[in-house]
Amino acid sequence: MPRHTKMNAAIITIGNEILMGKTINTNLAYLGSELAKQGIFVEYALTVKDEPNAIKQALQDTWGKYKIVITTGGLGPTEDDLTKSAISEFFGKKQHFDDNIWEHIQKMFAFRKIPLPETNRSQAMVPDDFIPLRNDLGTAPGLFYREGDFLFFALQGVPSEMKHIFETHIKDIITQNCPDAKPLSIKTLRTYGIAESRLAELFTLSNLPEGVSLAWLPQIGRVDLRFYGTDANKVEEAVKKALPVIKPFVWGYDEESPAEILLARLWKNIYTLSVAESCTGGLVQKLITDIPGSSNSFLGGVIAYSNALKKNLLNVSDTVLETEGAVSETCALQMAEGIKSLTKSTCSISITGIAGPDGGTAEKPVGTVCFGFIAAEKYWSKKQFFTGDREIIRIKAADFAILSLIQHLQGRNDN
Amino acid sequence: MPRHTKMNAAIITIGNEILMGKTINTNLAYLGSELAKQGIFVEYALTVKDEPNAIKQALQDTWGKYKIVITTGGLGPTEDDLTKSAISEFFGKKQHFDDNIWEHIQKMFAFRKIPLPETNRSQAMVPDDFIPLRNDLGTAPGLFYREGDFLFFALQGVPSEMKHIFETHIKDIITQNCPDAKPLSIKTLRTYGIAESRLAELFTLSNLPEGVSLAWLPQIGRVDLRFYGTDANKVEEAVKKALPVIKPFVWGYDEESPAEILLARLWKNIYTLSVAESCTGGLVQKLITDIPGSSNSFLGGVIAYSNALKKNLLNVSDTVLETEGAVSETCALQMAEGIKSLTKSTCSISITGIAGPDGGTAEKPVGTVCFGFIAAEKYWSKKQFFTGDREIIRIKAADFAILSLIQHLQGRNDN
Repeated sequence: MPRHTKMNAAIITIGNEILMGKTINTNLAYLGSELAKQGIFVEYALTVKDEPNAIKQALQDTWGKYKIVITTGGLGPTEDDLTKSAISEFFGKKQHFDDNIWEHIQKMFAFRKIPLPETNRSQAMVPDDFIPLRNDLGTAPGLFYREGDFLFFALQGVPSEMKHIFETHIKDIITQNCPDAKPLSIKTLRTYGIAESRLAELFTLSNLPEGVSLAWLPQIGRVDLRFYGTDANKVEEAVKKALPVIKPFVWGYDEESPAEILLARLWKNIYTLSVAESCTGGLVQKLITDIPGSSNSFLGGVIAYSNALKKNLLNVSDTVLETEGAVSETCALQMAEGIKSLTKSTCSISITGIAGPDGGTAEKPVGTVCFGFIAAEKYWSKKQFFTGDREIIRIKAADFAILSLIQHLQGRNDN
Repeated sequence: MPRHTKMNAAIITIGNEILMGKTINTNLAYLGSELAKQGIFVEYALTVKDEPNAIKQALQDTWGKYKIVITTGGLGPTEDDLTKSAISEFFGKKQHFDDNIWEHIQKMFAFRKIPLPETNRSQAMVPDDFIPLRNDLGTAPGLFYREGDFLFFALQGVPSEMKHIFETHIKDIITQNCPDAKPLSIKTLRTYGIAESRLAELFTLSNLPEGVSLAWLPQIGRVDLRFYGTDANKVEEAVKKALPVIKPFVWGYDEESPAEILLARLWKNIYTLSVAESCTGGLVQKLITDIPGSSNSFLGGVIAYSNALKKNLLNVSDTVLETEGAVSETCALQMAEGIKSLTKSTCSISITGIAGPDGGTAEKPVGTVCFGFIAAEKYWSKKQFFTGDREIIRIKAADFAILSLIQHLQGRNDN
């Protein structure tokens, strides 16, 4: 095959289930992002049915045209997983049984203390000349094949396993096989409290240095600005130009999640945190405990979904519940005080609101959410109106709670 | 244009951000599933950069070949949103300003009490002969265009808005314009507690009636079996054949989530529920409160992340924490008792475990999770070992907790 110099990739996602719904393709996002960091650009992404001919046609359309071709999906043990056969046929290879893989599969089942079905033997079959990539999180290995300048990988459909194989094997293989790849320099400014359209007015593309691109990434209720290019200095220059204009709205950079930044801020101040949630029902605490090591600063909290719990556990007064109601700033503050004294934390967050679809009134429509915050000596409350359905309102409220406490701890409290 | 009889669709996802990672394409899953229910099959799914030429090329490749072409993404107000211009050019249409849309955008900003930037005016532009589809959840409308037998829709990239437009407008348009579409009959059996490979041994494709297909849908830690075909009777027959073999593992049917089924079971028994979580950090309660109306049965709970909270709030004894540790069945049972008495609920769930990545020991490796359950008079505990990373272990643990209580309430308790 001829020498291929373009540092590009095609991703083939295999699965009726993705075309028919029921499964969300998170793998493309992960691969696109990770490959870009290594200087490989995904230029083509196709989703095909898990039929041998569709898989072979997709390989036909991409193999030899893109430096790297990656398939995801179709390596499980059940009958509809035909990927490996289609791949073997396309590349003209027979398959052989790999004892190491079989031993690994046996160990995985032993740990889970469940019997190992014979069907799993098919997962230990490897096409000749392919290199199996060991999967510590599951049974089926990934597969790697090289022909001339071209690299092929067959990966799992299960996102955690696919990521694990990419991290532990594929990154290094790409580094070794693509010495010409120019990694992309990427800097993301993460903003909150300003509409995408207003940001666009403040900041236009004409300000960008040559060779730097800007992407607007709307998140739920906020916007990320991503500057990228192959010249790291120019990307840095672009960010420096942008910062003076948008700094008040920037809560973080790059990949960090709001919960990660909040935990880092708490840790720096030797603060501890507790949370009392009503309408978000545990989402704030779920986001915080997503982060490994969160127990260093996060003590715990209460989901006070019923008014009885708000009273009995968090000490919210009857008067407040009767006069102002559970969705009020006064109730939110009492909840924040209640959880702080219950847990003896330095900081606390409380959320009480109407996530819908029912429960709204003219005065307090669906989307009305009240917040209480305590950061050491400082107490404050907030009322917000969020648009969207139940899920979106809950996400926006959880986000607002975390980002507000971050902004306060960063010394940019606007209260 | 000629009459098109195939009831198929192509989905074009627009966005560098999807190819480069950073955004996950949940829209394809939603559209694939909803269209299949209406008898329209997504046969092609392509992701392209948000560059005018890439968008026009994708339209060129699909328009006139598939009954329905849908684009998602690129209708926002910022500079990188070029979709509408590319679409107008491809269909040879000029654009006009739509006063109704502009009025709607003004109202949306007024509700959120934030100023309306001029940039948003571009969202009120509509290509001639296109019908705007009103968006109650956001500012940009969807777009609909019909030419002969062929239908084109341009939808938002934001999933909640896209779904809203699909629900409120597109379903009806498709029903009216595709009288020949034969809706797919789909029945999903949702199983738990049996490996995909073991299920495959119990149940093989050869048992299926003609015209019925079976898809294995591995979820995290469990498997769904989906039977589908255009003949509802035959699908029903296939399910009836399968049920005797796999019934002990079936916890639900079709689209219902575990939390929905649990809430329905609780409601039927006039039971209330409380939850005490440690390693899952709020995930169980988040899943339960995802469901509208969950407050009918769910009272609330505690996230006892620290041992101090386990003692002070949930009354876990010092002796248990010192001898057996926080990750023990005895501690789990005490947590379940503690939250039940605190909230005066009829049922309770508790979870305490090691989600990792740190904190594992030889005796209690990462993935060890203990559960306590109370359902009225009945008390029991369980210990499980889950594989995967922190996120996966937490999801599997939350799932196990909810599904175990369902199985008990369904009278199939194996304790």
